[in-house]
Amino acid sequence: MITLALDAMGGDNAPALVVYGAQIALKEIDDIKLIFFGDEKQLLPLIKKANLDENRIAVHHTDDIVTNEMKPSIAIRKGRNSSMSLAIKAVKEGRADAVISAGNTGALMALGLFGLRMLPGIDRPAIAAVMSAYERDCLMLDLGANAECSARNLVEFASMGHVYAESVMDVKNPCIGLLNIGAESGKGNKLIQDAHKILQKDSLGLNYIGFVEGNDIANGTVDVVITDGFTGNVSLKSIEGTLKASKKIITDEIKHSVLAKIGLFIAQKALRKAYKRVDPRRYNGAWLLGLNGVCVKSHGGTDEFGFYNAIKNAYSTAQKGLLPKMKAHLESHQADYWIEEEGL
Amino acid sequence: MITLALDAMGGDNAPALVVYGAQIALKEIDDIKLIFFGDEKQLLPLIKKANLDENRIAVHHTDDIVTNEMKPSIAIRKGRNSSMSLAIKAVKEGRADAVISAGNTGALMALGLFGLRMLPGIDRPAIAAVMSAYERDCLMLDLGANAECSARNLVEFASMGHVYAESVMDVKNPCIGLLNIGAESGKGNKLIQDAHKILQKDSLGLNYIGFVEGNDIANGTVDVVITDGFTGNVSLKSIEGTLKASKKIITDEIKHSVLAKIGLFIAQKALRKAYKRVDPRRYNGAWLLGLNGVCVKSHGGTDEFGFYNAIKNAYSTAQKGLLPKMKAHLESHQADYWIEEEGL
Repeated sequence: MITLALDAMGGDNAPALVVYGAQIALKEIDDIKLIFFGDEKQLLPLIKKANLDENRIAVHHTDDIVTNEMKPSIAIRKGRNSSMSLAIKAVKEGRADAVISAGNTGALMALGLFGLRMLPGIDRPAIAAVMSAYERDCLMLDLGANAECSARNLVEFASMGHVYAESVMDVKNPCIGLLNIGAESGKGNKLIQDAHKILQKDSLGLNYIGFVEGNDIANGTVDVVITDGFTGNVSLKSIEGTLKASKKIITDEIKHSVLAKIGLFIAQKALRKAYKRVDPRRYNGAWLLGLNGVCVKSHGGTDEFGFYNAIKNAYSTAQKGLLPKMKAHLESHQADYWIEEEGL
Repeated sequence: MITLALDAMGGDNAPALVVYGAQIALKEIDDIKLIFFGDEKQLLPLIKKANLDENRIAVHHTDDIVTNEMKPSIAIRKGRNSSMSLAIKAVKEGRADAVISAGNTGALMALGLFGLRMLPGIDRPAIAAVMSAYERDCLMLDLGANAECSARNLVEFASMGHVYAESVMDVKNPCIGLLNIGAESGKGNKLIQDAHKILQKDSLGLNYIGFVEGNDIANGTVDVVITDGFTGNVSLKSIEGTLKASKKIITDEIKHSVLAKIGLFIAQKALRKAYKRVDPRRYNGAWLLGLNGVCVKSHGGTDEFGFYNAIKNAYSTAQKGLLPKMKAHLESHQADYWIEEEGL
């Protein structure tokens, strides 16, 4: 049985978003239990309405919440009894195997770091998410936890991405690419060149294939894309923005055409299948990798199906034992050695 | 009359690409003359076949070419008589108003810098292109000329982008955004914070609105997006890759469905209109801004319609007097003053 701690008060449509996401999860996944952290006055009626199985849930009441506007430093000082903080504490104290929140990302990172600490051998955590891609799904990190990264950080992200792809995505010997502005060896800035040098060392135990470019993300050229949090965040949002704008442009053009409406109605089954392959809700749920505990961030604006996917992500990660596998990998490989050796 | 120098040997399908692109340009634009630089043995039969008006073209023969694999340093040492170099020289010597090449980008930048030098007051050139966007087209720079940038570079890019949008895109008081990983004032790295501080100075004469994010590019939130060449290149390729992958996914799904094929056939007129709004060929042609001469880079893999658009871009830029306007703006505004003042 896997127990998950839910921050019931995070997200644009919380707590309904969380309760109805949980409803799907309880139906789809047999061996989970869920603990809701939040305002029971709001939660209990919703839970009753959703008819959740009482034996598989618990409610932990708190009045405090972390708002979207709250700075991480304020969340740490004043948010100790918030739903987010208490959910993290449940993981820290072993009462839950993972925490899921659709709340304030910066605060979740800060409270996660404060409550769970880092994995031994990891200097900075990274936000990682599976991207919808043509050839295969690909894990990308960092998506914005670190606006400035060192080569050491990038190498650690590669190790974490490797273990994640192998143990959660079930990819044997996952291939890893470093995001750059060209595939040739001399391309990029000093950070990239420094990381590239270390990533090639055999003793890291990585299947590092060298540089990839922006177009390789949506194409799915590799299993894991490594980048600093600034570039990763801009790239992720560029991709999201492009999908959104394309959808708006197509909607605009068919709005005024009866023929187009009829045509798309006829083609709808295939188009739905195509859309399903890039549906952002299916890919919802990003990991704060590097924390000594499984912590998943859901998009704040998602719906219950999206939140269910974030729950499913947290469940798989805990169920497949990501953390012990990551610790074992970090202990048995010599990233630190090469980082020292290269003076980085 | 505007005279354009064409590197006839650059691009995957050169020189046919260039000749047929020129054919469209000569038909669509009345007041241009074109000089082809390249191998006349290949060019003359093509020009004859395309039936180009002899009074509006000239051919300057050379056997030398800059290959795609050539490093910029080699292109400078060995490429003096290449089609690319001679086309640039025609601009330098006033025999042409702009140069267009679909060849090696790094070499074009290096030979452009060597031949044309920089505009006074600009430290580094930037690759700029108009992006297809929902609300309005937006100019983005730098797209990859500089893998590492200083705050000074970003401020100069903003000045160049301002003059471009005003004088070539005909946007009054164009609004400018700095690409970042959040809209709040404390977000981003030191480079971004330093540039943000200077960009707010009134005396720069810019309509700077602050930070924008990756999704604002395809949305067209601003007229000009400023970023360093590393982030800009990754973002551009992420967008291109997403459009390509989406197209492949839709094609995959309709391939096996007769209904979908019928439906899309019926809807084709509206869908073509939608596609036209993001057609990369319509947006082909990037400027090497900051050089003391108009230099436009076409995608190497484009077709004749794409190359025609690159010619049109070079034509508009020369015809609307971008360079004198840019010089006047740089002289009359105090970017340098603030850069010194802030110690950057």
